[in-house]
Amino acid sequence: MEIKPYKKDSEYSYTLGAFPTFELLKTRPEIVREIIVHSSFTDTKSIEELAGRSGIPVVTNDKLIGRLSDKENCFVIAVFEKYACDLSKNRPHIVLVNPGNMGNMGTIMRTAVAFGIKDMAVISPGADAFNPKTVRASMGAEFRMNVRYYDDFGRYMKDFPEHEIFCFMLNAENNLSVENCRHKELYSLVFGNEATGLPDEFLDLGKSIIIPQSEEVDSLNITIAAGVGMFLFTR
Amino acid sequence: MEIKPYKKDSEYSYTLGAFPTFELLKTRPEIVREIIVHSSFTDTKSIEELAGRSGIPVVTNDKLIGRLSDKENCFVIAVFEKYACDLSKNRPHIVLVNPGNMGNMGTIMRTAVAFGIKDMAVISPGADAFNPKTVRASMGAEFRMNVRYYDDFGRYMKDFPEHEIFCFMLNAENNLSVENCRHKELYSLVFGNEATGLPDEFLDLGKSIIIPQSEEVDSLNITIAAGVGMFLFTR
Repeated sequence: MEIKPYKKDSEYSYTLGAFPTFELLKTRPEIVREIIVHSSFTDTKSIEELAGRSGIPVVTNDKLIGRLSDKENCFVIAVFEKYACDLSKNRPHIVLVNPGNMGNMGTIMRTAVAFGIKDMAVISPGADAFNPKTVRASMGAEFRMNVRYYDDFGRYMKDFPEHEIFCFMLNAENNLSVENCRHKELYSLVFGNEATGLPDEFLDLGKSIIIPQSEEVDSLNITIAAGVGMFLFTR
Repeated sequence: MEIKPYKKDSEYSYTLGAFPTFELLKTRPEIVREIIVHSSFTDTKSIEELAGRSGIPVVTNDKLIGRLSDKENCFVIAVFEKYACDLSKNRPHIVLVNPGNMGNMGTIMRTAVAFGIKDMAVISPGADAFNPKTVRASMGAEFRMNVRYYDDFGRYMKDFPEHEIFCFMLNAENNLSVENCRHKELYSLVFGNEATGLPDEFLDLGKSIIIPQSEEVDSLNITIAAGVGMFLFTR
């Protein structure tokens, strides 16, 4: 089968680089179609050993790697089938409303897994979680998560009525502090678009929270805000 | 004077884009040589008004903007003289040991200013704080900080004997928690290189701290680790 550069409506996507490829093989080997290595890749033996356990073919194809990767230091790629996930009803969630940037989305996934949050809702329209750029930014942490898209936030809330909603907004009513983030066992941390934040209507959809910050900056980067928020909530 | 694309040994650097340009004009107008605007820039009046107060020339030059900027959405540039800073002896510091990435360095500056930390030591070799990519990633927050390079950490410690040292390391002895980050009024938060972290010798140079994180990820991104650390220490 011919592998073409990724498009949003492709049925498959691929990892770029060794770290996310190993993560994929360790966590979801059943979705991997094949591994492509560059002839100068130094760790082909480990990849072949791990892929072999699940009967995944490993092929060498320098030209294809060059065509799929935009960076020069990519020596291994895993082609995988996209998959659908349901979010757990028994664990906390992170919710990204209309995220615009794939690198930010991947970084937030990596941070979420680091802090033990493994379910992410994305309210459409939003960046593509399966784009190889998102997968790379997540360092493969994405494969340890459930990610599901929702057309609107109301629909998400309907599916998870037991989750207490915390909306991170610059015009919020509460400052984030250890005392102010007491919560039920189940909760959802909601973050808006990088440029526009959450719309005002979210003020009424849950407890609104701002991370105290100097007026000398426009705002925190969304990946930092999400990191600080998730850290405090998961302590 | 002819403006050439930035090099590390240039005597000047430049902002890319409106936000950092306004920040520079508001905070350090005395170092600005000139402002260059694109003919399609929509906010030339505000720039001219602000630049005019300090007698800074504003010129239109589409070709020069194209040559200096690698992105298509840059419509204004401020050329500024590089400057030297001393760090304050009376405020907390952030210390980056051999930082490798200019985008990360800028993001950490933006976060530092948001949390009220305005002095940064960089232990050489390290990414160039004056590269336009660093300035852009900082969203101009860099101009509100003192940044100083040191050849080695020992020299830095000698200059600031009153500062309590906290080293963020994956093999640290203490978990970061609200209780564990009690500190003197003066302190230094020390972070290592993105790929290699802090060398083991830093275990003995201060209190070593790790941000508790799942073994399912390699580590937190350094900008997230610095963000969480600075947030907790500045509460």
